[in-house]
Amino acid sequence: MSDARYQPLPGFRDLAPQEYALRTYLYSAWREVAHRYGFVEWEAPMVEPTELYLKKSGGELPAQLFRFKDQGDRDISLRPELTASLGRIVSTRSLDYNKPLKWYEIGPCFRYEKPQKGRQREFVQFNVDILGEAGEGADAELLALAIDCMRKLGFKETDFLVRVSDREVWLQYAQQHGIPEERTQDFLAVIDKLERDRPEVSEEKLAIFGVTREQILEFIAHPPVGVSPRYDAVLEELKARGLADYVKMDLGVVRGLAYYTGLVFEIFDQAHSLRAIAGGGRYDRLISTLTDGSIHMPATGFAMGDAVIAHLIEACPEARALKDAALQPNTCDICLVLAAPEMRASMLSLAATLRDAGVRVDVPLSWSKLTKQLRHAERCGATYAAVIGAEYPSIELKCMATHESRRMTLEELICELIPH
Amino acid sequence: MSDARYQPLPGFRDLAPQEYALRTYLYSAWREVAHRYGFVEWEAPMVEPTELYLKKSGGELPAQLFRFKDQGDRDISLRPELTASLGRIVSTRSLDYNKPLKWYEIGPCFRYEKPQKGRQREFVQFNVDILGEAGEGADAELLALAIDCMRKLGFKETDFLVRVSDREVWLQYAQQHGIPEERTQDFLAVIDKLERDRPEVSEEKLAIFGVTREQILEFIAHPPVGVSPRYDAVLEELKARGLADYVKMDLGVVRGLAYYTGLVFEIFDQAHSLRAIAGGGRYDRLISTLTDGSIHMPATGFAMGDAVIAHLIEACPEARALKDAALQPNTCDICLVLAAPEMRASMLSLAATLRDAGVRVDVPLSWSKLTKQLRHAERCGATYAAVIGAEYPSIELKCMATHESRRMTLEELICELIPH
Repeated sequence: MSDARYQPLPGFRDLAPQEYALRTYLYSAWREVAHRYGFVEWEAPMVEPTELYLKKSGGELPAQLFRFKDQGDRDISLRPELTASLGRIVSTRSLDYNKPLKWYEIGPCFRYEKPQKGRQREFVQFNVDILGEAGEGADAELLALAIDCMRKLGFKETDFLVRVSDREVWLQYAQQHGIPEERTQDFLAVIDKLERDRPEVSEEKLAIFGVTREQILEFIAHPPVGVSPRYDAVLEELKARGLADYVKMDLGVVRGLAYYTGLVFEIFDQAHSLRAIAGGGRYDRLISTLTDGSIHMPATGFAMGDAVIAHLIEACPEARALKDAALQPNTCDICLVLAAPEMRASMLSLAATLRDAGVRVDVPLSWSKLTKQLRHAERCGATYAAVIGAEYPSIELKCMATHESRRMTLEELICELIPH
Repeated sequence: MSDARYQPLPGFRDLAPQEYALRTYLYSAWREVAHRYGFVEWEAPMVEPTELYLKKSGGELPAQLFRFKDQGDRDISLRPELTASLGRIVSTRSLDYNKPLKWYEIGPCFRYEKPQKGRQREFVQFNVDILGEAGEGADAELLALAIDCMRKLGFKETDFLVRVSDREVWLQYAQQHGIPEERTQDFLAVIDKLERDRPEVSEEKLAIFGVTREQILEFIAHPPVGVSPRYDAVLEELKARGLADYVKMDLGVVRGLAYYTGLVFEIFDQAHSLRAIAGGGRYDRLISTLTDGSIHMPATGFAMGDAVIAHLIEACPEARALKDAALQPNTCDICLVLAAPEMRASMLSLAATLRDAGVRVDVPLSWSKLTKQLRHAERCGATYAAVIGAEYPSIELKCMATHESRRMTLEELICELIPH
């Protein structure tokens, strides 16, 4: 079965239930934390006009698009990220909502990159955005939410670190070092690549701007006190929430996309052996750009993917234990076991009664041996098995954990399973 | 803002939170019923090799594909349905699971069709399949699950009807009327279009097979007693579950795709004014075809879309009332209201404590007037508002429904909101 016909495309994954369970686990954690913060869910199309991504993103995104022509000769692309769609929806609907908007989205994105550890061509992202609030309260709320997602998944402050930076600091730095305003984005792009480029490459790139790599590294290592008033204000808010230990100022973080302004951040594993777990920041001018200046709406947001986090869960014992416990197979509350085939109609009637009350019930779909049915009850993690035989409406209820059995009437069984 | 740049592609939808809420409502209903039946969730890639769809589907599907070449010159398509992917996954993993498999999936599909009422180019489907069980128990379980989804959404037997048919009956009919075996699929395709084609068109098509339209209509209107033993057996199972009144035998249902075998069904609104709400049936030979005969696994499944059901909910008062109640805005349990800006850190600390316990808490992200904050608490459907002012740690707790206020200490508030 290694035949290519039986494989998904490179960078795409088949998720049979045992793999999908991890996704359900992540989705539940993300949703629960978003709801604790009063966020509401939205969704965008999977496919968008390509123009939407060419206009605002910059960076490597255009080259990574799954881009094609549809039957109507439209230039369309699978969405590589959600911010562009969010910008459109918010622009067209800005009057329908009270500010600030606190919106989240969970869904697939697509990028044509070389598949590798923590990077697939189809991946799911949790996108969280606050729109219509310029103050540091929004930056702090967003960072707290991101940290709480990590905590919810069982990660400790020894497992991950939120590296927070401020693009304003670099804009100021550029100004002080005589870098012309129109070249600032290029300068930021060099800083962004500092950790990944070889030193001599960075040196050469920086020379164009009249600064040395050593100067930059020194500035990142020892930023002047008070250099980012926004960071200081956010840190105060995080302290009040008891979350200050999860963050660290790190001016080495710049973020690749051109639309970011102000505070930006990335979450990494403490060992820094994996790609970023999440990243985001302010994009105060994006809505204005998309609407040619007709709507101004400050915004901040982040995205957290599923792939890197899955690796980190395996590497962190507490997070792994939480995940393993949540992924225990438990597909039903009670397995009905049919000991006498002529009682099938009675069994189905009982199943319908229990299911109508919300109980998760498994029934044999065809006749099989009692031992086989009981083995099945064990495998699917059922709490109970109920043996329905010739004695019906007297039923034997087995507790799967203790292996204890009790005989009871149909009415008693129903009372036991449906709390009133 | 009617500028084309601010629109999604034709047939695609932006789902701001107020629209997405309906999707959450449907997803929850589908998931809850699937879990009651002991089904587990899986997912397939959004994009597949085009070959996967050309091989098995037939019908109109190939012409409706969003089909393109990727950067690696692969012929790929957005998935138009899930059964082909399911077949692949099950084929390659058949030894990992105990039969029968009871799997469901919820996600988007894509078809390049003319957008119209109840039909979008991107739509979401609930796919439910039982694999590895050939008996009528599986057909009945699947039909019961489909009916329970409709009931869960508030639909009555006066709102919808499950039209059940049996392809075996038509194969037998074809044989008795001398239609050669290799032409049976074409004959079935004519029956499938009987309701939509103009009478003279059907008449002409049927003449080729040596039967008249009147003969066919008479056979559908008065099928011989006992013509489908499978249908009779399934009806017995549904009777035992109290669900027989939701189904009716209707041999006019054939289903368009070539891979169906045996029992097939479609769910329609009773007025029959909308497209099908759901459809499915047996596909006992698909896995065998996909694996060139190496794996035999009988199967039955159905898909239920989001678009038609949304229209039917609006048309049925009980279903609409249920939906409206579920969609009431209620994005938080408690809104913290800041009456004294210097208490911000205390407010944030309280928010963190409550959120850590799972309470859904809204906080003002920047300073605004008390009346504005209280209006916000009302709008987001909060159960409580807590006013934090200069008297802190004494707090005023307002019940939003009764407008009653009580003054209490921080500890009392925490005890009230976090049940121990």
